[in-house]
Order: sequence, then structure tokens, then C-alpha cells
Amino acid sequence: MANMTDCEASMATDEQLQEMAGKLRVHSLRMTTAAGSGHPTTCLSAAEIMSVLFFSVLAKNDEFILSKGHAAPILWAAFAEAGLIARDELLNLRKIDSVLEGHPTRRMPLIKVASGSLGQGLNAGVGMALAKKLAHAPGRVFVLQGDGETAEGSVWEAADCASGSRLDNLTVIVDANRLGQSGPTRHGHDLAAYERKFRAFGWATAVVAGHDVPALQKALAGPRPGDKPLAVIARTFKGKGVSFLEDKEGWHGKTLNEKELHAALAEIGPADITLPSGYSPSRAAFTFTDYPCDEYAPTDVVSTRVAYGRALLALGGANEHVVAIDGDVKNSTMAEDFFKAFPGRSFEAYIAEQNMAGMAMGFSAMGFRPYVATFAAFLTRAHDFIRMAQYSGSNITFVGSHAGISIGADGPSQMGLEDLSLFLSMPEAVVLYPSDAVSCARLVKETARSGGISYLRTTRDQTPVLYGNSEEFPIGGLKVLRRSPRDQALIIAAGITLHEALKAHAALKNNGIAARVVDLYSLRPLPEAELSRHAGECGNRVVVAEDHYGGAIADLVARVVGKVTGLYVKEIPRSGKSGELLALMQIDHAAIAAACLTLVH
Amino acid sequence: MANMTDCEASMATDEQLQEMAGKLRVHSLRMTTAAGSGHPTTCLSAAEIMSVLFFSVLAKNDEFILSKGHAAPILWAAFAEAGLIARDELLNLRKIDSVLEGHPTRRMPLIKVASGSLGQGLNAGVGMALAKKLAHAPGRVFVLQGDGETAEGSVWEAADCASGSRLDNLTVIVDANRLGQSGPTRHGHDLAAYERKFRAFGWATAVVAGHDVPALQKALAGPRPGDKPLAVIARTFKGKGVSFLEDKEGWHGKTLNEKELHAALAEIGPADITLPSGYSPSRAAFTFTDYPCDEYAPTDVVSTRVAYGRALLALGGANEHVVAIDGDVKNSTMAEDFFKAFPGRSFEAYIAEQNMAGMAMGFSAMGFRPYVATFAAFLTRAHDFIRMAQYSGSNITFVGSHAGISIGADGPSQMGLEDLSLFLSMPEAVVLYPSDAVSCARLVKETARSGGISYLRTTRDQTPVLYGNSEEFPIGGLKVLRRSPRDQALIIAAGITLHEALKAHAALKNNGIAARVVDLYSLRPLPEAELSRHAGECGNRVVVAEDHYGGAIADLVARVVGKVTGLYVKEIPRSGKSGELLALMQIDHAAIAAACLTLVH
Repeated sequence: MANMTDCEASMATDEQLQEMAGKLRVHSLRMTTAAGSGHPTTCLSAAEIMSVLFFSVLAKNDEFILSKGHAAPILWAAFAEAGLIARDELLNLRKIDSVLEGHPTRRMPLIKVASGSLGQGLNAGVGMALAKKLAHAPGRVFVLQGDGETAEGSVWEAADCASGSRLDNLTVIVDANRLGQSGPTRHGHDLAAYERKFRAFGWATAVVAGHDVPALQKALAGPRPGDKPLAVIARTFKGKGVSFLEDKEGWHGKTLNEKELHAALAEIGPADITLPSGYSPSRAAFTFTDYPCDEYAPTDVVSTRVAYGRALLALGGANEHVVAIDGDVKNSTMAEDFFKAFPGRSFEAYIAEQNMAGMAMGFSAMGFRPYVATFAAFLTRAHDFIRMAQYSGSNITFVGSHAGISIGADGPSQMGLEDLSLFLSMPEAVVLYPSDAVSCARLVKETARSGGISYLRTTRDQTPVLYGNSEEFPIGGLKVLRRSPRDQALIIAAGITLHEALKAHAALKNNGIAARVVDLYSLRPLPEAELSRHAGECGNRVVVAEDHYGGAIADLVARVVGKVTGLYVKEIPRSGKSGELLALMQIDHAAIAAACLTLVH
Repeated sequence: MANMTDCEASMATDEQLQEMAGKLRVHSLRMTTAAGSGHPTTCLSAAEIMSVLFFSVLAKNDEFILSKGHAAPILWAAFAEAGLIARDELLNLRKIDSVLEGHPTRRMPLIKVASGSLGQGLNAGVGMALAKKLAHAPGRVFVLQGDGETAEGSVWEAADCASGSRLDNLTVIVDANRLGQSGPTRHGHDLAAYERKFRAFGWATAVVAGHDVPALQKALAGPRPGDKPLAVIARTFKGKGVSFLEDKEGWHGKTLNEKELHAALAEIGPADITLPSGYSPSRAAFTFTDYPCDEYAPTDVVSTRVAYGRALLALGGANEHVVAIDGDVKNSTMAEDFFKAFPGRSFEAYIAEQNMAGMAMGFSAMGFRPYVATFAAFLTRAHDFIRMAQYSGSNITFVGSHAGISIGADGPSQMGLEDLSLFLSMPEAVVLYPSDAVSCARLVKETARSGGISYLRTTRDQTPVLYGNSEEFPIGGLKVLRRSPRDQALIIAAGITLHEALKAHAALKNNGIAARVVDLYSLRPLPEAELSRHAGECGNRVVVAEDHYGGAIADLVARVVGKVTGLYVKEIPRSGKSGELLALMQIDHAAIAAACLTLVH
């Protein structure tokens, strides 16, 4: 029944679509009662919208995102009625062995973008719509969002980007059912308020009765507005179709008991209709093409952010599905080389980091491979999106420049000091921290080769090249930069502190102390066996130095080797020169050498 | 010269204010050249605005926030000319021993809200304006923001909240200088675009020539619009006043060399004027009043989120400067008890977590004590604001409910699994994790007593009361729930896993194994000495169980006691029942008991 053409699918009559809306209601109520938890009333407000979308509007090249993720039951119901999953799967909603989770995640193979943290669907939709433009691909992108979630600023970041990019292939439907979780939304049924906002942000708008099938048909399948994205603002009622639920407060996350269910189904009436659907989502994959990495001379002094810029350029030259997204700092992250070379694949998100990350989810779902860069500090702005990207199964590399106190005089607001904690708290994220240009170039390639979420931390300051061009940097590895057969201490570092570690090594050597120095460029996966071996060979006297709060790297190492001396940023820093700050915060060469001496003596 | 009355300050002539603008330009250029880094051109675009504000408009009850924090030099210059700091301090800009940092922070005592992560000032301004309304305090709140930062969705969250709350005492000035860091802003000098947006969000607007002193005077000091907040959109030029800087790209974060400085100062001309200012900021403090905590019966079974709701009510009853802010989940976080009892001090932020946190910074600066609650997962949405709150010196308690996989069927998007990492990455944050109603009530009181940022993690599930009502829970403490003189292993837990630990203890006891069980309710400060002692008394066989990603608590403990067995959420969870998930992720009683057995045998 799936994979009907646009034409076949749109042949359903208004009466049939109305009946299908009833059937979707019945499924949603039955599923949530069986599960004993969930959000039935938000499904009911969206029943006509979902029926019209799935059984009249959506064609095979179209994309659909359920931004109001708590309405997952009606999405699963629509999938079942569209023939994409078996109907008898539905009653497994929320069970531990079912892919039909409480909110959509990547476990359900038809889901391209997880939802459930509200106000993210439109950002992903913008990414998909941009990807379609880039690929000259037909079809439209539809995002169904709640009225409550329009309060999220990320929605307006997406709205701004969509109109600025003239995304006439993007439609958002606002299911304005008046009620949030804990009470009425700010605008209630003042639909003109939503219309004013979307218009001010450059969108075409249509206000419709959201339970009126012909009106929805006209708005969603009708003639399209010039070169603008379209917002269809639908006046709906939460719990629509069941008298004791409709427009009532107190039913947000509540399911019906068996008796209530019986009464509700009686009100909704017969639900035997079947209809074909033109919707048939598929996930596009990115295929990596190899290329030669940039080469550096041993005498070069190059910041890793500059090396990142060049590496991205080389990657993009060989891989036409690589896209770059930046937040008005491309001349700092150095993504600007790519922007100049490949303007069509470069996306200026302006100062809107949530949209930057959300767009990347959309691009990834369409087979593109996004590289998203800003100051490491400002990735915290996108934390919730990055978190959700892992549940979306996205392939995205985030790049945080200006890591740590070594940026100096700009002060703490600009210092990325929590970025490693952020990415290390995600179970599957690859976390890389190159210390020189050669390793940075190679690690950029490794991220492109690997799937999932990866993070690359770069440094503002210029640093000398440490490696020859033939060196390999596999994910999960480390490098030993200084060693001797009689090493008395092990210094582990990455980024700016690795260069301090090398200075400490020299100072210790002058004092007759042999220390081993390890470049721990791969924080996850962690080279556990190698770390353990080196620690053992150095008498388990281990110093870890990092330009980050809280001892994130020290903790990783300690898990493997036991107790370590962790040198990290232990208090709130301030403006100053890079070297002054490294000394003040006790992560410079002197502090490293002193820590080694303490361990050795 | 400071502390002039409104009347005295406003007597400056247009010519004098224009000359003062020149003087502020001179200071800004000299300061940044002396520092060798900074953002002079963004200061120059704001010179007339700052002159008119500081030397004509601002009166002693007014508040000012520099949202475009990179324009810090002109703020310090205005402070100096207003007599608030010594003029010869200015050339210490960005030096390691100066409070005049690259971007405003709490180190400078006159700064109430740090800036430098863009798009946060208006949110704090909303909090200040609401605080003024609540306190029936006179005066206005002015926020100076850049045009680039209006791309941040958080600005529109603030805008929505401000108009919804009829904040006629709030004015934002958009310094629309056309140029961002890496290129033109999306709207450039299309000021009507900003006007449309603010109007659609319910604001009164005025578009002015931003270098025209009389026009600024009229817009900022003139008659005020009905009950709406006011957006003054000022057409300005980056680098204004210096021919080779004005409206030129490539000068964002660049300072002038001595020769360029000389030429620039010659163009600006004489700058000898002095003028009085009515601006005199002062930071209000919160004073804690003690009260009796809620009492619970030993047989009670109460979730810590419910206990939090009751505790907040008790706290608010005794402390009239406590305010509650929630993001449309007050019936889940249980802040709703407070909302019902104290509607005037309760603020529904709707689904806009950034604004929720930003508002709290504003309230805190005005002497109120905000308690900010949402699902722990959604605090990630406010990560950048929480980060900046620590640099603002704010006193805020964040409360994250629905922590961990134990929430069950809603799935991973709703599970707070990174919140401890987030708060523990902040050097000064107090991090508390109560396991029963008694301790939760007492810890809420402790947070109110302590300053700074604190985090309280609550649990969705109901759990039995563990403590008597006479028990004290000092910050930095722990509780021993099970002990014997011959304990063979130490189980450390908090929250839901503590209850699993108690079950594990019983099972181990049945197998003849004595285990000690510690409730580690204070994660920071950590009771290091006590932990160390208990570990030693249990043969350093330590198991840490936590409902969180990455082993955040295990790492804290390991730093003190050495190697531990960390049981935590090691992979991405899914929908399911609470008990099923605890078992699947190996943090339940069976996993804890098994880990102890492995250590003991």
C-alpha cells in the first residue's frame, strides 16, 4: 500500500480522510491505554492534520518531521495505516523491546530526526530543505509542531534562516491546540499572534481550522507562495473528538483507563477505513572518498584551527556531500577557506548555534556530512540539540575552536572550558583533541570516515608541528613524543598543554629526571591498553594536564591507570595573556614539571 | 560626579553629549591599542548611544546591561567618565590584574550580569524589569545589544516574555551597525526587518539614526509607549568617526597600531569634556530567613520532586524574595504548589529554557532568589546561560526533575543523563542529589542559605522516606545508611540508585556479605575525608551506582579513594519500565550486589 504516487494518494475524498482521522484517534487512544502512559490528547488535536498529510499530501520525495514528539503514538499509527509498519506492532508502544518509543528515536528506522525535546523539528527541517535545494532534489519538507514549542527561540532561529534562504520547499504546520503541559500556552487560540510572528520573520502564512479536512487540503496541497516558506497555523483542540477530553486541562500526559477508553471509542465511532499513502521515507547515507591530507614542514608553526580550515577544504574537495556550517565566526574557526572554495555547500547560520546544530541533523538525514564549527564555549548553546543528534542517529562533526584559557585576553565568556565534559557525557561520541597541524589534518579525515557524532577541539594559538607527514592518527590511538628506557613519570596531555608538557620534559631532563610524554589525541575511544602500559612503565607516576574545567581528561586516564595528578582549570579564570593564564591556573610547563618532581621524590 | 539626580544629568546639551561620544571613542581606541586586543569598532558604533544613556538618560534607579559584551571598552570608558572608576584604570584593560576584562564579568563590582556570549542581555533585562515590577521599584531597565545577536533565538524568547508581561519599564537599543564578526549581518541596514520582528512580538518600536544625539534623546528619554516594552533600533556604522574604520569589513576583533591610533585620534578631534552622570548601579543582596522544614513520617513514600515542591513552598513562605520560574512543566517539577500559593512571585517561562535561566540572572541581580525548575534533560537547553550565570555572580538554584533512565517509558529525550556533568564542570557550583523527602526538604533550605549557583537533582519515582526529621544535611556531607564493624564493601549512591543499593545490601547480607551503604547527597562540595575513611574501613572495595551517563559520580569518588567500580548508564537507553531499564543498564540492585561480590571474592 505504501509508495503510491502523489496522484494516487491524493484521490482520497474528504470523507475518507475524516474517517482516517478517526481511525488514527482510535489507534492513539488504544496504544496509550495499553502502554499505561503517554500523551493521547495531543494526538487527537493532530488527527486531521496527520490524515491529510499522510493520505493525501505527502508524496514519495517528501519529508516529514514530527517536532511535537510526544504525539509519537499518532505517528506510529499513521506509519501503520500507511503500510510502513505492521498494525499489530502498535500495541507494543513504549515496551522495552519495541522500536515504538515514547518519543521518536533512531531505533525506529523510519525516523530521521529524533524529537521530544521541543522546538527542534523546524531546525532539522530547515537543514533538510536546504539539502534538497543543494541536491536539486524534488519534494517538500513538512514539519508538524505544537503551539507550545513556538516559545523556544530555536524556532525563530529556524524561521529566520528559512526565509533568508528562500525555502519555498518548507512548510511548518502549527497544531495550535491552546493547551501546554501545565496550562494554556501564552497565545492560546490567538492565531493571529503566530501569524504576525511568522510573517515578520519572512514567511507566508495560512490560518486554518485544523479539524477541517478540505481547509487543510487547500492549505497544504494548494498553490504555493512565491519563494517563501509556508506556515500553516491550525486552530485545533487538544483531545478533539472525545467530549470529556476536548479542550480540557489536566489531560496532557494522562492515559484513559479501560472504561474511559470504551466511552471514547464509542464517541469516535467506526474506524474501518484503509487508504493508500504516498509517504515512503528513506535514509540517505554518506559515502567517504579518500584524499591526500595537507602536508606540513617540520619547522611550520600553525594553529590547529588553521589546520582544521585547510583540512576541511581538502575533505570538501574530495567529498562533494560535505557541508560546512558556521555561526559568524568562520574567520576564527577558519572554516572560511571552505566557505570561499565551496560557497554552495557553506551555510552561515549567523549567531544562532541551536539552529546551526539543528540544521546539521537535517543535512545528515539527507546524506550530507556536516562540519559544524564555532567557539568551543558556544557549543554549550547547542547542548540540547547535540544531545538529541545522538538519538537521531546523525553523522555530524562538531568543531570547537578557541578552547580553554589559552585564548587569553577575551576572558572567561569566550573560553571553552566545558566542551570536553559535554561531549564525553554522550556515550557514543568520538572526542578528538589534536595538538599540531599534521594530526589535526589526519583526524579531520578520520571523523569523515567514521559515523555518528564526533567532536574536534582546536586551539587558537599557533603551535609547532610535531609529526612527520607519514604519521597515522587512528581514532582510539595515542602518540609517545618523548620516552626513554628509564622514565620515572608519565605526562599525558593534548592541545596547548602538550606543548607545555614538552617544555616540562626538557626542564626535568636538565634536572636529571626522565619523563615520558604522551599525546592523548583520542579521548574517546580511549587507548586504554596503551595508557595502562605506559603508566606501568613509568612507575604509575602519572600527571595529566588539560586546559579544561573539572579534570575531564584526568578522570578518563584515572579510570584506566588508577590515581593520577590532575592539572586542570580549577577556578574561574580571567582576562590575561595566554602564558600568564596557563601559569596562574597551574597548567603550564612549570606546574607540570613540579607535579612530576613531587611524584618522583 | 556620580549619583547626580535625573534632573542634573539631563541638562547636558546635544553638543556636549556629542563631544562626550568623541571622548568615549578616544578612550575605546586608546584602551584597545594599549591592550593589543579587543573590539574597538563595535565601541565606535555605540558611542552616541552610550553618551546619551550615561550622561542624559540613566537615572539612579535605572539599570543598564551591555549585551554586546565585546564592546566592554566603551562601558569601562563610560564608567570612568561617570566617575564610577578612575580614568587611569582604563589603560589596564585586559591585563591579568585588572577587573576591566575583555568582556564584562563579576570581577568588576558594578557588573550585575556578565556578557560576551551574545543574545543573553535581554533575557537578564526581562528578569530585572520583572523584579522591579514585583518590588514596585521605580526606574527603567536598558539593554544595549548588537544587531548580530538578534539572530539568537533567546532574544525572541525574551521579547515574547517582555510583551506578555507588559514590561513598559524595559527598553532595548539595537546597535544596528550592519557588520558581524565575519561579514554583514543577515539584515544589514534593513532596520524595518528588526522593527517588524519586535512589533510582531508585541513591542513598541522606534527607528532612529544612531549617531544623531537629539534623535537618540527623543527615543530614549521621550514619552513612553503605553504598556509595552520599547525597542529602539539605531542605524549605526561600525567604526564610526574614523574614516579608515567606518563601515569597513575586516576590523571586528582588530586593534589599531600606534600610527593608526594617532591618525584616528586626529580625526575624532578634541575630547576634553566632562559631564555628570545619573547612573549609579548597586547590587542588591538576598537575606535568608530561617523556617521549619516539612516533616515526613517514616512510612511515607514520596518522590523527591514532590518534596521539592513542598520545600519550595515552605521556603517561599518565610522568604518573600524567593521567586519560582518554570518552563511549562510545573506540574512535573512540582513547582506548582508555589505557583498556587504565590502567584505574584511565580513566573511561567513557557517552553523557553534559555529565557528561564536568563531571567533568573536578572532577578538575582536585583536581590531576589530564583529557583528555576524543569526536566533535568532540558537544562541542557540553557547550558550557555548557566555557564554565564557563574560569571555574573548570580545566586540561582536550578532544579532538574525526571533525572535518569528511571523515568521509564518516555524514552531518552526526556531522561536527564548529562545534568550532573553539566553542573560539575562548573568550578563553583554546589551540586546536590537528595534521595528522600526529608533530605530534599533540608537541602532546599541549604541552597537558599548558600550563595552562587546550586543544582538540585530530583527523581520522578516515589521513594520511601529514609531519615528522621531531626537529621541535618549540611552541604558537603554524606549519610551512612547501613554499616557494621566488618563491612567488606562500600556502596555509594544517590537518588534512585540509593534505594537499589539498600536492596543490594539486603541481598548481600542474606549471602553473608556485609556492605556499607553511603548516601552521597552532596556531590560538590564532596565530603572527601569521610569518603576516604569509609572506603578504607571497607577494604577500599568501592562500588558507585548512578543514574547518569559517563560515571560522573564514580569519577568524583575515584579521585578521593582510588579505583572504584562504576555502575552508570553506559549506552543510549530506550523506552521501558523504570525497573526494566535499571536492570538493562546494570544500575539496579542486582548489578550492585554482583559488583560487590566480584570485589569481595
